[in-house]
Amino acid sequence: MAGEMARELVLIGVGAGDPDWITLEAVRAVQQIDVLFVVLKQDNLDDLVEARREIIRRHRTRPLRIVELNDPPRPWRTAPDYSAAVARWREQRLAQWSAAVADELGEGRSGGFLVWGDPSLYESTLTIARELVGSAQAAGTPIALRVIPGVSSVLALAARHQIPLNRQGRAVQITPARLLREGLPPGIDDAVVMLDGRQTFASIDPTGIDIYWGAYLGTPDEILIGGPLSQVAQQILDARAAALERKGWVFDSYLLRRR
Amino acid sequence: MAGEMARELVLIGVGAGDPDWITLEAVRAVQQIDVLFVVLKQDNLDDLVEARREIIRRHRTRPLRIVELNDPPRPWRTAPDYSAAVARWREQRLAQWSAAVADELGEGRSGGFLVWGDPSLYESTLTIARELVGSAQAAGTPIALRVIPGVSSVLALAARHQIPLNRQGRAVQITPARLLREGLPPGIDDAVVMLDGRQTFASIDPTGIDIYWGAYLGTPDEILIGGPLSQVAQQILDARAAALERKGWVFDSYLLRRR
Repeated sequence: MAGEMARELVLIGVGAGDPDWITLEAVRAVQQIDVLFVVLKQDNLDDLVEARREIIRRHRTRPLRIVELNDPPRPWRTAPDYSAAVARWREQRLAQWSAAVADELGEGRSGGFLVWGDPSLYESTLTIARELVGSAQAAGTPIALRVIPGVSSVLALAARHQIPLNRQGRAVQITPARLLREGLPPGIDDAVVMLDGRQTFASIDPTGIDIYWGAYLGTPDEILIGGPLSQVAQQILDARAAALERKGWVFDSYLLRRR
Repeated sequence: MAGEMARELVLIGVGAGDPDWITLEAVRAVQQIDVLFVVLKQDNLDDLVEARREIIRRHRTRPLRIVELNDPPRPWRTAPDYSAAVARWREQRLAQWSAAVADELGEGRSGGFLVWGDPSLYESTLTIARELVGSAQAAGTPIALRVIPGVSSVLALAARHQIPLNRQGRAVQITPARLLREGLPPGIDDAVVMLDGRQTFASIDPTGIDIYWGAYLGTPDEILIGGPLSQVAQQILDARAAALERKGWVFDSYLLRRR
């Protein structure tokens, strides 16, 4: 009977780069889940698939059942009626995830998702998982949800540059690159940007701004460049382009800091 | 001879609450350091001293030499010429830390500091460690610095409330409470506040704002309250006061989110 033994979904933040940035709670979850749901994206990156496998290899002693979810392709920003397309995409995705969980997560079982970095920052898994849990609840087949925090690339960036994210008595903003197109907004003197595909830092007025940039944080490929934006922007662009050429992908982030 | 064998300081982010939020890198550092520097503050909290001891007990198999640093008392905000007093306090602190490290950290040795949460967020250890490393460098006795990121209470708050910190395509700000005295600044719709001793959330206009509040995150004492600020502010004040009364201290944080 539905509801007799609770089912559980666990979002496991595994840290952003160094395999040793995983927490003991995340390790324990990897050891205890009954099934791992793996979201396959169109642009699935071999290195990240390998990183996920490595986590399983290192921490899972028993066999682990893996269920692959084929994520429907996300609409392009240039699609006609973009927001309707995104809404449709979300519905499809929720339907696919719900079906997979209904089929594959038995009573009393625990199903996990590995989430790069931390589940709460610029990550859509949590949003979908909440929707999924909400519709399961409405259908009378409740699923418990657990979220395990992880070392976000925001914190990793600061640790590797050995800088505080905030300055004494001041705020720091974590922001999509799009909101920085006109430069640091008035009143914002410290802003972290994750996954900026357009290298927005290089197209804003660099006057009075320092940048701390990092790619592949915590891995053997790590690159760190910091300094006055006017002096290092080109160096970062070059390093990023060369790395992208060499590896086929790049995960980078940066802090802009008004002097 | 100075410099022949590198000395190292390691700032070990240990996560903010649940002992299982420590990372494998932090565990390894606890196992490998030769000496642990412990900063004793005037208001040292037994529970936090105990949490630190528990980390050592769980993860350190060999004996660990512990060196206590007596932090000079931080000047009150109401002190005459506050900023000069803070500057003097910093100099004293740097002098004490430098002397202790010079005395206690031998050539080729590694010295650690345990840092609650993450070393990059509203934490002064990193700033002093950088100054210390800078003056050691200038004195011709270099010390390497390593920073190990940890699960910040900001991420823990989001994980425990099972909410994303940012909304789709939007920024989130981590801010001192003082900057919110007039309410959420224009253009800021999502703000996280750590360690607000004045419960600023309760004195701003609550219209259109949700709050997600948490105390003692990840511990058996954890309290979570979320909802429209107008409806739950008093409940949070009451819960916080009762907890403070019971335990003698409270570590709390909250997210304000404009609807």
